[in-house]
Amino acid sequence: MSVTIKSTSKCFGGLILECTHTASTVQCQMNFHIYKPPKACLGEKVPIVVFLSGLTCNDTNFIFKAGAMSIASQLGLALVCPDTSPRGSDVASSDSWDFGQGAGFYLNATQEPWAKHFRMYDYIVKELPSVLIENFAKGENAWLLLDKEDQLRQSIFGHSMGGLGALVVYLRNLELYHSCSAFAPISNPTDAECAWGQKALKGYLGDSEEARSTLWVQHDPSVLLSNLTNVSLVKEILVDQGSEDKFLHSKQLQVDKLESAAKKVGASLTLRMQEGYDHSYYFIQSFVKDHLEHHAKFLN
Amino acid sequence: MSVTIKSTSKCFGGLILECTHTASTVQCQMNFHIYKPPKACLGEKVPIVVFLSGLTCNDTNFIFKAGAMSIASQLGLALVCPDTSPRGSDVASSDSWDFGQGAGFYLNATQEPWAKHFRMYDYIVKELPSVLIENFAKGENAWLLLDKEDQLRQSIFGHSMGGLGALVVYLRNLELYHSCSAFAPISNPTDAECAWGQKALKGYLGDSEEARSTLWVQHDPSVLLSNLTNVSLVKEILVDQGSEDKFLHSKQLQVDKLESAAKKVGASLTLRMQEGYDHSYYFIQSFVKDHLEHHAKFLN
Repeated sequence: MSVTIKSTSKCFGGLILECTHTASTVQCQMNFHIYKPPKACLGEKVPIVVFLSGLTCNDTNFIFKAGAMSIASQLGLALVCPDTSPRGSDVASSDSWDFGQGAGFYLNATQEPWAKHFRMYDYIVKELPSVLIENFAKGENAWLLLDKEDQLRQSIFGHSMGGLGALVVYLRNLELYHSCSAFAPISNPTDAECAWGQKALKGYLGDSEEARSTLWVQHDPSVLLSNLTNVSLVKEILVDQGSEDKFLHSKQLQVDKLESAAKKVGASLTLRMQEGYDHSYYFIQSFVKDHLEHHAKFLN
Repeated sequence: MSVTIKSTSKCFGGLILECTHTASTVQCQMNFHIYKPPKACLGEKVPIVVFLSGLTCNDTNFIFKAGAMSIASQLGLALVCPDTSPRGSDVASSDSWDFGQGAGFYLNATQEPWAKHFRMYDYIVKELPSVLIENFAKGENAWLLLDKEDQLRQSIFGHSMGGLGALVVYLRNLELYHSCSAFAPISNPTDAECAWGQKALKGYLGDSEEARSTLWVQHDPSVLLSNLTNVSLVKEILVDQGSEDKFLHSKQLQVDKLESAAKKVGASLTLRMQEGYDHSYYFIQSFVKDHLEHHAKFLN
């Protein structure tokens, strides 16, 4: 569970740590970037926000392109950006950019040849928090804040496939995360018109009636939300969506389904349609301040 | 001189335009990114700041990684990021990452096989401003501000090799730029200990006594500054340098020479040694706000 720090760079008074570790859930070497804000460098313990990236991304995209450290620095938030899938020459791969390495969909695969390594749900929900606690929240140099029962004080957000991941992880583990938000999330992957979702769910979880009714629904934010019984535990969810996002128009995202599900069960969800924005990091950086302030409100 | 806009993305209320054009100075297709701030989208004309990137970079690095649009948006500044060299299969190349394509050093080469295409000085000083004026400062959709004599109202800054470029271009054309700043610039390339500078100046300009005395000195910020006769025209130059920058320690940068030259001639130059920062975009993004505010002060 020990992390190797490959590089350290100062940024807005804090530190970017480029980390790697051997992960048991996904059975390969996994990289992540973590931002330690100035407050933590000065000896105070801070909460952390997990960002899950989208298709084709790895642990660098958000750190490089989102302009998030300027905000996290001021708010006293740590950030952690894990990879989007297991990686390596002994990990199964496909010729598609939207399936296989770089496209783990934050689920535990049941189908071959994916089942051995593609366990990103367990990695994000169980292993990554344990690794962060062991390496950065215990001992005399600890700088990550723990809640009661030694849980990480954390929130989660993400973009596109990572927006799906953040919503799924949050809605299935309301007791583990203080808040959740998403940029342009894949909101209804079980819908037949969501090509990314259909391909991933069939490929990783199988296409049987049983797989659809027991597994697929566990990875669909809109289905999870509309079936939620402990709605009172859901903190306000913030979702930003660009109106000129081509993946919105091609039905990959379907954020309206998420909004309908929230209304159906009375969960608090703010969907902001951002006029003229697309699916890129230009969109993310334009609103990342609002998202980090949203999380800071629940974490502090 | 007509520019093709390959993509448009909204960012902080403004627009990122990904542009390409056929450049006559460097005789190849050249790409640049330009940011049109919200103020310009609302019909007002705005000044522009040119950013010159460092070794191995192209027209995307600063736009993707510097977090500059959040600031330029608020200040009402346009940004333009050109490439660092001519490119293409018919352009001469080398096996080195610090010479040839991606490493144009913002000079006009005299040596073969570089002389035909490697004319980045002329591209930055003459052609790029003309292209910007023709495409974005004239006609009914004009949004870039012109000074008297139809010159672009512009300032210039850059990083590393691009810091050298910005300083050289500024010091040789004080009448064309309102201000200049640099992040970790290569400050004294004619010095024998500056390996990057020696390689570039020898390779592009030749190694004769005459080349050294007439051409090399025209591309050395510290030499240009110490020989400057019209010092009263120099506006305060802002230079940030990370104290943990490995290229500072290996004598590639030598910002102290620039500071000495400024003192010698009485030019206003503020060199800030930023404790703990390295040479990366984490360093640039941490201080880009100060640089853009510096330029806004002289442009507005």
